[in-house]
Amino acid sequence: MTKNYIKISEVGPRDGLQSIKQVMPLEAKKAWVSAEAAAGVPEIEVGSFVPPRILPQLADTAELVAHALTIPGLIVAALIPNLKGAENALKAGVHKITIPLSASETHSLKNVNRTHTQMITEVKNIAALINNLPKDKRPKFEGGISTAFGCTLEGKIETDKILALASALMDAGCDEVGLSDTTGYATPRHVVKLVKAVKGEVGNEHLTGLHIHNTRGLGLANVVAALDHGITTFDASLGGIGGCPFAPGASGNIVTEDLAFMLDSMGYKTGVDLDALFKVREIVQEALPDEELYGFTPDAGLPKGYPIGYKV
Amino acid sequence: MTKNYIKISEVGPRDGLQSIKQVMPLEAKKAWVSAEAAAGVPEIEVGSFVPPRILPQLADTAELVAHALTIPGLIVAALIPNLKGAENALKAGVHKITIPLSASETHSLKNVNRTHTQMITEVKNIAALINNLPKDKRPKFEGGISTAFGCTLEGKIETDKILALASALMDAGCDEVGLSDTTGYATPRHVVKLVKAVKGEVGNEHLTGLHIHNTRGLGLANVVAALDHGITTFDASLGGIGGCPFAPGASGNIVTEDLAFMLDSMGYKTGVDLDALFKVREIVQEALPDEELYGFTPDAGLPKGYPIGYKV
Repeated sequence: MTKNYIKISEVGPRDGLQSIKQVMPLEAKKAWVSAEAAAGVPEIEVGSFVPPRILPQLADTAELVAHALTIPGLIVAALIPNLKGAENALKAGVHKITIPLSASETHSLKNVNRTHTQMITEVKNIAALINNLPKDKRPKFEGGISTAFGCTLEGKIETDKILALASALMDAGCDEVGLSDTTGYATPRHVVKLVKAVKGEVGNEHLTGLHIHNTRGLGLANVVAALDHGITTFDASLGGIGGCPFAPGASGNIVTEDLAFMLDSMGYKTGVDLDALFKVREIVQEALPDEELYGFTPDAGLPKGYPIGYKV
Repeated sequence: MTKNYIKISEVGPRDGLQSIKQVMPLEAKKAWVSAEAAAGVPEIEVGSFVPPRILPQLADTAELVAHALTIPGLIVAALIPNLKGAENALKAGVHKITIPLSASETHSLKNVNRTHTQMITEVKNIAALINNLPKDKRPKFEGGISTAFGCTLEGKIETDKILALASALMDAGCDEVGLSDTTGYATPRHVVKLVKAVKGEVGNEHLTGLHIHNTRGLGLANVVAALDHGITTFDASLGGIGGCPFAPGASGNIVTEDLAFMLDSMGYKTGVDLDALFKVREIVQEALPDEELYGFTPDAGLPKGYPIGYKV
């Protein structure tokens, strides 16, 4: 890990696949994860430990984790909504778990039927569970603050509320917090403001990741803003899978391929081989023939002669 | 003009319409220009003074200029490929003319069948023509350096070549130079590097505008990078008109609506009323029913309650 290293965390198999109706066969998911890891993506959120009746698309998460754990060097991550999910994730042996906590209590109640206080209690119980494990078996535990940049139900979210939640998550036993632009409301200066504020609250090293959406086309602009302020991990989804159905190109997550190209062009080390990454699209497209894959760079191709003479 | 003012220059009626086959009726063009000026866009490049046999889509440029000049406060701009075009533009009475000079000589020869030396001579002749006018009748004369970030034929373009061309354009009588990312090769750090270098060469006040494409999805990211380095005018196209046909969402120019939203959210003054701007799409879509309009923000809508509490 050099100073110039930026970690791309692929969330397509979780955030992407949970947003579309089609269920990707387990074998295709395995091929996807293997190919993307081989292309150099260092961390993949392979699924979510939720009841299969809620998200049948992710019912095989434990099996996919088992496969992903066989890939040398890959950080295998999963989302967990609650204590039960954490138990299953720990049993499966993931390296990292993220529990989403919606800054909008309205959204939290609607989404997981829990108040902030109830969620923080859940976090404490999960932390206790983790601390019962031997030290070398403990996954990294992230509290992901969703709707951090505003909520489609509540509208704007006050920074003070985010700070209180970030602090509560750390006190409850998280190793780090993340900020999620669930609604695609983030804008460059808002990103800078919130990142600075949260880093000030929980410490620079306890906020390193952003989960940015591209709903209003500002995804990579927000990344550029965040890069100058100590964010070193960005979530993204291959082909923008899980795109918003009402707008062509209006993907949910930022597109992994475009992010990887941009970071590479800016001289950041990501470990990703761009051509190999673009090829992973074929696996995903074949398994999801009805799904439109997004991504400007794979469609347009790399600049002629890239990277020679282009990295500045 | 406050310190915080950023000028959005709409180029859709020129750059957008020249890229599509359908010819927009003059009345629709007039309605478009009027509505977008009424929405607060301060400058519109309404056409190009080229022979109608080359670009029949823009054959009515002089008539559109005449209409645009009746709109109080609007800066009426036009592209001109050569001296003949400049004569016609001056006759029409535009406020600003831009002559494109391709940094790639291969591209220049292919596109306008002229070497760099021939183009600079043309610029000198145009400057002489302008200087024959009374001072208050002289349009602003911009030299737009195209393929500034690389060329699909030549590949990378050395910074030294750009500096030499920028200097030659100023010496030949341009009032300012602009940088155009014709091929969509620009990346955030390249933008910063080139902007700094060219400003160093021609003086800060003689490079204020960028013409950025969104071919690889980095358009707004490049804008964010440029905003920190003294660029105060950005070209954009309503609905991303003139989009690249091979990729959904891969528009040529950056989308005016997304640019306007981003700048507004960042606290910049643009003078643009976002809702009124989004409504202009209806005029364009009605006149070009077969054309897909891009734009993430108009499709997704403004954040709930925007702008209250969002501008930071």
